[in-house]
Amino acid sequence: MEILQSIVEIVGPSGLLKGDDVSSRPNYSWGMGNCPARAIVRPATTEQVSRVMALCHQENQTVVPWGGLSGLVNGITCEPEDIVISLERMNAIEHLDAEAGTLTVQSGAILQNVQEAASEAGWLFAIDFGARGSAHIGGMIGTNAGGNSVVRYGMMREQVLGLEAVMADGTVISSMNEMLKNNAGYDIKHLFIGSEGTLGIVTRAVLRLRPAPRTVQTAFVALNTFSEVAGLLRQLGTDFEGKLSSFEVMWRNHYHYMVEETGKHQAFLPTNYPYYVLLETEGSDPEREEELFMTVLGGLMEEGHIADAVIAQSSQQAAQIWEMRDDVETLVHNISPIAVFDISLPIREMENYISGVEAELQRRFPEARMITFGHLGDGNIHLGVGPAHDKHAVETIVYEHLAKVKGSISAEHGIGLEKRDFLHCSRSPEEIAVMKSVKQALDPKHLLNPGKVFKV
Amino acid sequence: MEILQSIVEIVGPSGLLKGDDVSSRPNYSWGMGNCPARAIVRPATTEQVSRVMALCHQENQTVVPWGGLSGLVNGITCEPEDIVISLERMNAIEHLDAEAGTLTVQSGAILQNVQEAASEAGWLFAIDFGARGSAHIGGMIGTNAGGNSVVRYGMMREQVLGLEAVMADGTVISSMNEMLKNNAGYDIKHLFIGSEGTLGIVTRAVLRLRPAPRTVQTAFVALNTFSEVAGLLRQLGTDFEGKLSSFEVMWRNHYHYMVEETGKHQAFLPTNYPYYVLLETEGSDPEREEELFMTVLGGLMEEGHIADAVIAQSSQQAAQIWEMRDDVETLVHNISPIAVFDISLPIREMENYISGVEAELQRRFPEARMITFGHLGDGNIHLGVGPAHDKHAVETIVYEHLAKVKGSISAEHGIGLEKRDFLHCSRSPEEIAVMKSVKQALDPKHLLNPGKVFKV
Repeated sequence: MEILQSIVEIVGPSGLLKGDDVSSRPNYSWGMGNCPARAIVRPATTEQVSRVMALCHQENQTVVPWGGLSGLVNGITCEPEDIVISLERMNAIEHLDAEAGTLTVQSGAILQNVQEAASEAGWLFAIDFGARGSAHIGGMIGTNAGGNSVVRYGMMREQVLGLEAVMADGTVISSMNEMLKNNAGYDIKHLFIGSEGTLGIVTRAVLRLRPAPRTVQTAFVALNTFSEVAGLLRQLGTDFEGKLSSFEVMWRNHYHYMVEETGKHQAFLPTNYPYYVLLETEGSDPEREEELFMTVLGGLMEEGHIADAVIAQSSQQAAQIWEMRDDVETLVHNISPIAVFDISLPIREMENYISGVEAELQRRFPEARMITFGHLGDGNIHLGVGPAHDKHAVETIVYEHLAKVKGSISAEHGIGLEKRDFLHCSRSPEEIAVMKSVKQALDPKHLLNPGKVFKV
Repeated sequence: MEILQSIVEIVGPSGLLKGDDVSSRPNYSWGMGNCPARAIVRPATTEQVSRVMALCHQENQTVVPWGGLSGLVNGITCEPEDIVISLERMNAIEHLDAEAGTLTVQSGAILQNVQEAASEAGWLFAIDFGARGSAHIGGMIGTNAGGNSVVRYGMMREQVLGLEAVMADGTVISSMNEMLKNNAGYDIKHLFIGSEGTLGIVTRAVLRLRPAPRTVQTAFVALNTFSEVAGLLRQLGTDFEGKLSSFEVMWRNHYHYMVEETGKHQAFLPTNYPYYVLLETEGSDPEREEELFMTVLGGLMEEGHIADAVIAQSSQQAAQIWEMRDDVETLVHNISPIAVFDISLPIREMENYISGVEAELQRRFPEARMITFGHLGDGNIHLGVGPAHDKHAVETIVYEHLAKVKGSISAEHGIGLEKRDFLHCSRSPEEIAVMKSVKQALDPKHLLNPGKVFKV
């Protein structure tokens, strides 16, 4: 344990957790398992991260970087020989430039605190999802997080102007760019975004903020065919002039389950339509926006493109619709064991894909059901399948159908350990070889988050 | 010349240019010089690019990839021992998915043809700049091109969903993703975007299209202080609800020069204000949009935030204002020799930066003048300084002041050969070392676009 003594000298006694303080932390997604790592190191500064990594590099010590542990693909899982570097103490919101709309933070900053800091200054930080109270900015960068407003604002990648990262050998790369445009050489921040802590440990970031909307309009609509859903997405893209900020689809199996079976959510609309869409716009002028919203949706109903619709009359009612959409916990607890998927595919393939998977699941596992919903505006859907006693068999069905339509086995969650063995369904051997070349170049000893994304 | 014989066998006689057909082509930006390369290879398919590269790899033959030659940083310059691979025959627009808004093209496709194909299908391809008639999509990917609408739609990077590239050893990497979200492993397309042909040759791409606007509003306004310019940018970000698509600033020295000295352009406004902004919004409803535009700008004038304004009454008048903004050729021809810069910096630093550079230039080169304009919405300005008989001295002044405020020596043009010796002004030794590691990993023989971006 000599290395741990050297680490204490760098981070101080409160910077190192051992024994029960380690095993009481989880080892898998959803807070499952007990962390078996040698220790959890909690640096307070970039310099400490750098010195710890330099030491680990010298001693060939593997390291698993931790953010807020809200990831869903076992990207934080440790073996007994690993140590954890947790960014939990590096949670400062350092500087907000109210003129330019940029926010500089340490990577342990929590999403909700970032959102609130932006909001207090009249700006918007545009990524949002259910785990806002625990997710770290650094983890969101490592996984290129998505969420509910990607259709308007893009993913985490589009919110990061610059970052600072510590490489496997302890070198600090400071790329704290603040400008929207910077073509001075390779844009190396993209190496770290979405590479799940396997190429470096992100320690700070400059985030791009957006003008805060002054008004939000929310509707929940029902449609009779999938092609009407796809047509609605395209129509609203034009009619709402780029202000469409969410386009969340629920198949009947999702909405019916949430309303009729759980009894936990109101029936905003009858439960017998095949498709439902939660849609939202963000604008600057409440009156003007409401009028546009009513005109566009009214027109679409008159022309028969929408079967039924309810427009949220208050932010409270909008929140209730969102709670129903986001209630993944109820799914996970009631349908057990459940296999949850995060996939993307071309929208033109979606209807056939879903019915193909459903039919094969029905054949193989007649007792299982499939719940289908997601961010259709981004081609991203989530499937819940359960009871899934043979999870691997269910995964094989879902991913093999997906490979045929050139879909992605991970739209927004990443690969981690959980999807690693299926990476070949979405990436060619040549693509994976390039990934491995980059890994070899930047972390030749394979110390950073070992085993995640692919085997080296 | 054995290798050339083998290449002819791959690409056919019309696929290989030699002698005068090579030297009649340029070697530098602005069409200057005579290409000294051994040959220009013009493959017709990805497979031909792959076979040619495999051969070059075996023979240690250096290769300079060529797009439409509209770049401005000598990224296409050859030495006599190089061969050129020009994508000019791979110009097909392969497939438009009108439902999803994606366009699949070969990398030699010309920007204007791509814009027109999108437009005919009711979509917008969102990158636009003066060289639209010659720029290739592949070159725009290699340089991460910007242009006039980045403030709304982002740079080329944000328009590329997937791509195909040929590596230094001839391996074809097919990453023709069509989805907005795909987190299945490292997003390797970002290695090729903005790396100026030094890591691979892009052969095809899937482009993201945007809903086509139905109406464009254009105004030309005058302001009295720089802080009012910055304030206007922020205000319009909110008031125009994300529909602000251009925010182009001209300092008085630019507008006064274009109108009073060249006599080529109309005085849309008096020429004695210190700052002018060309601003544009894109929307879906002409009446609604015009009303919003008038209300917002009228309010800002009443409150004294804008000193003077003219709203384009026709698309013809809007085009005239844009012609004045875009008339870089007149600058380049009339002020000779001229040094033209493409830089970005935090907006809060801009006023001091410009006056600092201007003062030092005035001191060192009292006969030179500085013309200042650019895409301020992105922190990107262009400077023209001339007559600049000692170009290197002028560059040193511009870039050394820039390093102090953490600006970028290239906002949207790239580095090429032209800015290579100043890369250290915007990138740290650690950042450049990472770039070199990636280059070494993917092109260990240093065959692709040798000498560009940095020396290896």
